[in-house]
Amino acid sequence: MRISTLSIGEELICGQLTDTNAGTIASRLLQEGVRVQRHLAVGDNEPDIIGALADLGRVSDAIIVTGGLGPTADDLTSRAAARATGRRLVINEEARSHVRLMSSKLENLILCPLSDKQAMIPTKSALISNPTGTACGFHLMHNGCFMFFMPGVPAEMTVMLHDTVIPFILERVVRKRAIRTASLNLFGPCEAEVDELLLGIAQPEKGLTLGICVTFPWMKVTLRAEADSGDAANDLVAPAARTVQERLNEYCFSSGDISMDEAVAELFRERCLTLSLAESCTGGLIAKRITDIPGSSQYFCEGVVTYSNNAKQRLLGVPEEVLNNCGAVSSECASAMAKGVRTVSGSDMGLSVTGIAGPEGGSDEKPVGTVFISLAAPDGCWTKRFQFSGNRDEIRTLTAWTALDWLRRYLLKRGQAV
Amino acid sequence: MRISTLSIGEELICGQLTDTNAGTIASRLLQEGVRVQRHLAVGDNEPDIIGALADLGRVSDAIIVTGGLGPTADDLTSRAAARATGRRLVINEEARSHVRLMSSKLENLILCPLSDKQAMIPTKSALISNPTGTACGFHLMHNGCFMFFMPGVPAEMTVMLHDTVIPFILERVVRKRAIRTASLNLFGPCEAEVDELLLGIAQPEKGLTLGICVTFPWMKVTLRAEADSGDAANDLVAPAARTVQERLNEYCFSSGDISMDEAVAELFRERCLTLSLAESCTGGLIAKRITDIPGSSQYFCEGVVTYSNNAKQRLLGVPEEVLNNCGAVSSECASAMAKGVRTVSGSDMGLSVTGIAGPEGGSDEKPVGTVFISLAAPDGCWTKRFQFSGNRDEIRTLTAWTALDWLRRYLLKRGQAV
Repeated sequence: MRISTLSIGEELICGQLTDTNAGTIASRLLQEGVRVQRHLAVGDNEPDIIGALADLGRVSDAIIVTGGLGPTADDLTSRAAARATGRRLVINEEARSHVRLMSSKLENLILCPLSDKQAMIPTKSALISNPTGTACGFHLMHNGCFMFFMPGVPAEMTVMLHDTVIPFILERVVRKRAIRTASLNLFGPCEAEVDELLLGIAQPEKGLTLGICVTFPWMKVTLRAEADSGDAANDLVAPAARTVQERLNEYCFSSGDISMDEAVAELFRERCLTLSLAESCTGGLIAKRITDIPGSSQYFCEGVVTYSNNAKQRLLGVPEEVLNNCGAVSSECASAMAKGVRTVSGSDMGLSVTGIAGPEGGSDEKPVGTVFISLAAPDGCWTKRFQFSGNRDEIRTLTAWTALDWLRRYLLKRGQAV
Repeated sequence: MRISTLSIGEELICGQLTDTNAGTIASRLLQEGVRVQRHLAVGDNEPDIIGALADLGRVSDAIIVTGGLGPTADDLTSRAAARATGRRLVINEEARSHVRLMSSKLENLILCPLSDKQAMIPTKSALISNPTGTACGFHLMHNGCFMFFMPGVPAEMTVMLHDTVIPFILERVVRKRAIRTASLNLFGPCEAEVDELLLGIAQPEKGLTLGICVTFPWMKVTLRAEADSGDAANDLVAPAARTVQERLNEYCFSSGDISMDEAVAELFRERCLTLSLAESCTGGLIAKRITDIPGSSQYFCEGVVTYSNNAKQRLLGVPEEVLNNCGAVSSECASAMAKGVRTVSGSDMGLSVTGIAGPEGGSDEKPVGTVFISLAAPDGCWTKRFQFSGNRDEIRTLTAWTALDWLRRYLLKRGQAV
């Protein structure tokens, strides 16, 4: 089945908003072994929408459309869908009841107005129910192509995709080939190194392919096996995944959709250790990432963002001599910060970072990107100097990733707590 | 001129990576008054790339292609471009020298390998130089359509777009109509309210249109005027922008591309006041956003992330009775935290947040989403209770936005420091 997505919205086409719906649809379908072939986006412009539906209709068996079903005048998708498929646009009573019910129920920061416009649906369409928002979706068949229309709000779209669109598509897909995938997430190596380490693993002639996707500052290696049956695809992908894991073990922080933050959180929970943070150049970014994870209060005690020297002395007990003789960006200061936050908080571990994120503040000796990270733990205190390159945001991101990866490696080595 | 973008990459089509290049290209071109009509994305698959170039070629005068020019085997764009346009793929000596030079110069976390593959360019193409990476781009003309090919790395693409592609396009665009835009960024109102407040401003018949783009949790109102000359477009957009500003003044935190964080930073610089933060449920997110801005050390003294009650007492001097009688998520605790961090840090202002971000920890009296924000300043201390809805991430994001917006409003009211 050839599937395309079509994202509609002036904000997408103008670059004001990045479309995430096409990616969500593609990745959910790929989990079911169905690959999306094209993502197209057009603005809130009726001829463009009609043209896009016609063009995609010629090369697709199904089009999954998102956006343009809202209550305001610039939402044109229903009308364009009706014109593109030679249907009339009529009030759908079921959709009208839904819009009214949801409008009265929803109580959030951003409320949608009550509007019959959202109940106008092309004739000979079936509704796609939207349990979380006002706009119903609909689907229809035109010239042998299934067309699904959903609102562009990601949270609403995701539920409708899962509840209605994907089951509908899977029922109709004649899957000649089964697809299985496995992926590993890496931090640290360069792409060329990974490429070399993975030589000989892909066997495209047998249906086993391998892709490397670099997303600053980490990368994902994905194995994809296509075979006549699910078992055969599994037999192809599983041993290859083990080989990849062995060769890249040093860099691999997780598999599948598990983020670095979640991997670190999981280790903290397992090891029953607690952590406090003293951040300078990352300004709270590491604490933010640690506390992104629900339940982090189990292992995260406190964080301090000590931008000023005064705060470093007062909150962490960094000696004045260290600040005067070595400076705030120094190995000595980083280690005093890590030990300090560990002591004052009473945590098992203290982690500190101090550095120059730029764009100002660099010197010949300590250029922008110079970062010291220090880890104080029950069995010692270690400090490392790093030289990162990039802009302020990249340097802060690299620093946070490196610190989290260091925590991960330390916790792995510590083994299970008794 | 009808312009399309084409983004190439298996990771894009699989939903592993969100394409930002198409948006960057569209927004840069729109600044020059040129609208992109379609964004298409396909995977690393030669027939799909060839098909996309052919389809877009039929409806476009220019196609701006990104991605698939890397050194690895799955980078197929050059070969597909050659096939799609009936050209041969040959080593380009200038590109080869560039690849070698850049490979020897680049020294970063992720290094690209030396490879002649990146010097293979279709015949009868002109190079697009890439000052920051190894892969040269190229452009060619096929059946009356300009095709530009650039690497997918956003930082490299952006420079090449700016230096070569946009000037090339602008030279050839016969702009019959001038376009001017103005935009305002809002936090707080619902879309329906904004819609109502903006009634009567758009005059599509005169070429003045208005769009509202909601990006959780803020929104952007963009006015766009199209006229025979730049002056005429300005005359259309400028008074409308003033009216929009007047009607939405209460909610408007900035115009154009200025973020909430930058708007707040600018006010801190102007007012010469300093800030310290005490965060509980946001876990460092507000400090992270404040310190995202270069030079924030001028006004940001310190932040503490006090997850535990112990930390709230020890670092901020929150009285034990408050924690015992009112709880850590209470108006009393928030105000003690704000006053505490202001006192211990010696800052002009102290801001605190404490709340329940979920998914666990809610009660009937204080459900998930209950957040207290407190602001301690030279002229008083104010505390407010909020009830946010959404998941953990949304509640934390809304809390940080609300806190930053409160700082902004306070600083605006304070007027200029003496």
